[in-house]
Amino acid sequence: MRDFNFYTPTKIYFGKGKEALIGEIIKGYGFKKIMLQYGMGSIKKSGLFDTVMASLTENGIEVIEMGGVEPNPKYDFINEAIKVAKAEKVELILAVGGGSVIDSSKYTAIGAASGLDVFEVAMGRAKTDKALPVGCILTISAAGSEMSASAVLTNSELGIKKGMGGDFLRPLFSILNPELTYSVSPYQTACGISDIMAHTMERYFFPCDDTPITDRIAEGLLKAVVESGRVVMTEPNNYEARADIMWASSLSHNNLTGCGRENALAVHQLEHALSGLFDHIAHGAGLAVLFPAWCRFAYKENIERFAQFARGVFDIREENDEAAAILGIEALEGFFKEIGMPQKLREFDIPNESAALAELCTMNRTRTIKSYLEIDAQLAKEIFDFCY
Amino acid sequence: MRDFNFYTPTKIYFGKGKEALIGEIIKGYGFKKIMLQYGMGSIKKSGLFDTVMASLTENGIEVIEMGGVEPNPKYDFINEAIKVAKAEKVELILAVGGGSVIDSSKYTAIGAASGLDVFEVAMGRAKTDKALPVGCILTISAAGSEMSASAVLTNSELGIKKGMGGDFLRPLFSILNPELTYSVSPYQTACGISDIMAHTMERYFFPCDDTPITDRIAEGLLKAVVESGRVVMTEPNNYEARADIMWASSLSHNNLTGCGRENALAVHQLEHALSGLFDHIAHGAGLAVLFPAWCRFAYKENIERFAQFARGVFDIREENDEAAAILGIEALEGFFKEIGMPQKLREFDIPNESAALAELCTMNRTRTIKSYLEIDAQLAKEIFDFCY
Repeated sequence: MRDFNFYTPTKIYFGKGKEALIGEIIKGYGFKKIMLQYGMGSIKKSGLFDTVMASLTENGIEVIEMGGVEPNPKYDFINEAIKVAKAEKVELILAVGGGSVIDSSKYTAIGAASGLDVFEVAMGRAKTDKALPVGCILTISAAGSEMSASAVLTNSELGIKKGMGGDFLRPLFSILNPELTYSVSPYQTACGISDIMAHTMERYFFPCDDTPITDRIAEGLLKAVVESGRVVMTEPNNYEARADIMWASSLSHNNLTGCGRENALAVHQLEHALSGLFDHIAHGAGLAVLFPAWCRFAYKENIERFAQFARGVFDIREENDEAAAILGIEALEGFFKEIGMPQKLREFDIPNESAALAELCTMNRTRTIKSYLEIDAQLAKEIFDFCY
Repeated sequence: MRDFNFYTPTKIYFGKGKEALIGEIIKGYGFKKIMLQYGMGSIKKSGLFDTVMASLTENGIEVIEMGGVEPNPKYDFINEAIKVAKAEKVELILAVGGGSVIDSSKYTAIGAASGLDVFEVAMGRAKTDKALPVGCILTISAAGSEMSASAVLTNSELGIKKGMGGDFLRPLFSILNPELTYSVSPYQTACGISDIMAHTMERYFFPCDDTPITDRIAEGLLKAVVESGRVVMTEPNNYEARADIMWASSLSHNNLTGCGRENALAVHQLEHALSGLFDHIAHGAGLAVLFPAWCRFAYKENIERFAQFARGVFDIREENDEAAAILGIEALEGFFKEIGMPQKLREFDIPNESAALAELCTMNRTRTIKSYLEIDAQLAKEIFDFCY
């Protein structure tokens, strides 16, 4: 087990109707003026916006509205939000939405508090640990940003999607009401499930010594997501299954499943190139294609570990390790297919841009992606070709 | 899944030699004067005391020493500590030790900050959410107090051992170095393992709907503890196994394994009567006798759940649920025996005081202990008789 720090101070309010507490919660912290970020307006149609505004108003919280966050939050929008947040001197950014809205709020919080160019911060060329507090009301179970230390930014002009991390990016609080995810479409639900599983698998498949407690917890979490994932595809209003997936979203990326391990997010780096270049590709759908493919390239580096995954997550009974490992990868592919995820990149109606994607994820060949495999531009191209 | 709040702000520093960071960590928070609590002096023999003092001194932290915390921390000692903490105006209580030292520190922190009688607070007759911050350097993996919201107090005069909880009791930070537990005796190690497992099983066996994600995580955690528990009994200096058990200690009682469930701590209430009356009985050893016994009384209330436990934790392959449930309880008994725990109360060299114990844990018949079973004085006596 490697040394680690574990710090998850985000306060979770989990359950039915908890979003109605938002005004009271924010008032409890003593904040009086906040910025409310949300996406393309679905929260207005669903009535969530009204519930939130009523609670905020009732508790005397002044609200600066900033709707219109796009999927894969954009640098331009965030810059505008930072300008407003500074001018209005807001004290907290409240994200009502999914990962994109939360990440947009996190970068707004960094920009408003630090005064730095957030693209430079995301690229690691400017350093800060300052951010306004961020609160969340989650509406899509997927990114885990509601409890995680990370945030992803897309610079459309440069076609670059880049993540960064730091404990100062963990939200102050997050409200998780599974009912708010009933209306998420089957496709988006499946994308979320892929993303959640990928967050745990990225940590699980990092090359280091076995960590029994973290491994068993990770296998248990994945098993529960598969179990409830199957339920939710046929019963979108099943509270228990939605609750399972929502809580898995937070636990998969708050680093519980990475304690004593490392987290290279190798497949995420491949996927960020993909959805950075092709904006219409949902992150989770990209991961669902790329993750099993990566496994097929990587499993020979640690057959025992992939066999353990097969047995622990998919109850594979095969005794031969290599056979079990392959059955596990097939079970993962099968599960993604079962929940309606694509199997190949060509299903996204895109040309095969494997060379360009390989350049992107290796930053023009200036670096490799390390995990079981050391992925250089050549290998990245092979993986993208395989996926096409 | 029931509604829940989850708030674990304790910052964990996990790994080799991390105790040498103590001065730097405390200085980072801006504290200048602290009280250092520890037990009966083993930290002086081991050199840990010197390491801690050197780091504190180097960072300009003034230290008020308060050694001599006994197992099952005593009301009298704590009152003395509170007096000193107030007079010296210390800003943080640093606990260097196991659960008893940490709980003593927590009650000192409550008394010093609130001015209330801490026995009254423990009994729920005086209310507060004020406490000085507490930091920990853990030397025994067992109680989970290093990350939990609870603390137990013993009033020897009245023979009462009573726990209480509240998020304000979660430590500010905890340093977890598995090497510091190498010197813990096999018996104390096994007691710790029993306590850790009991914390998770108390939550697992609470009567409510299944919670797949929490259930799978709990089963995974228990599986890892059994696996590493076996290793550590023969290899006390096995870092990986010690690390597993240490991290399980924190996760078992920080409520991760209780999310969406409730936690009656039913068997703990029986055990607190036992070690409250017989001071020489280690809490974990009492639990190792009482838990499987409680299971034998309780399993018929939810055979399916006990079967799931058997399959998820001990890999029992039996298909009949009742047979599987019983095999699971036997496996639990067998594991406790394997690690050197007693099977019956008479092994503690005590008379059979089942009637007195039953009165104690039902507070002179004024209440029952609720979980799968509603335990009144009569049933409690039967369980204690069975255990004798």
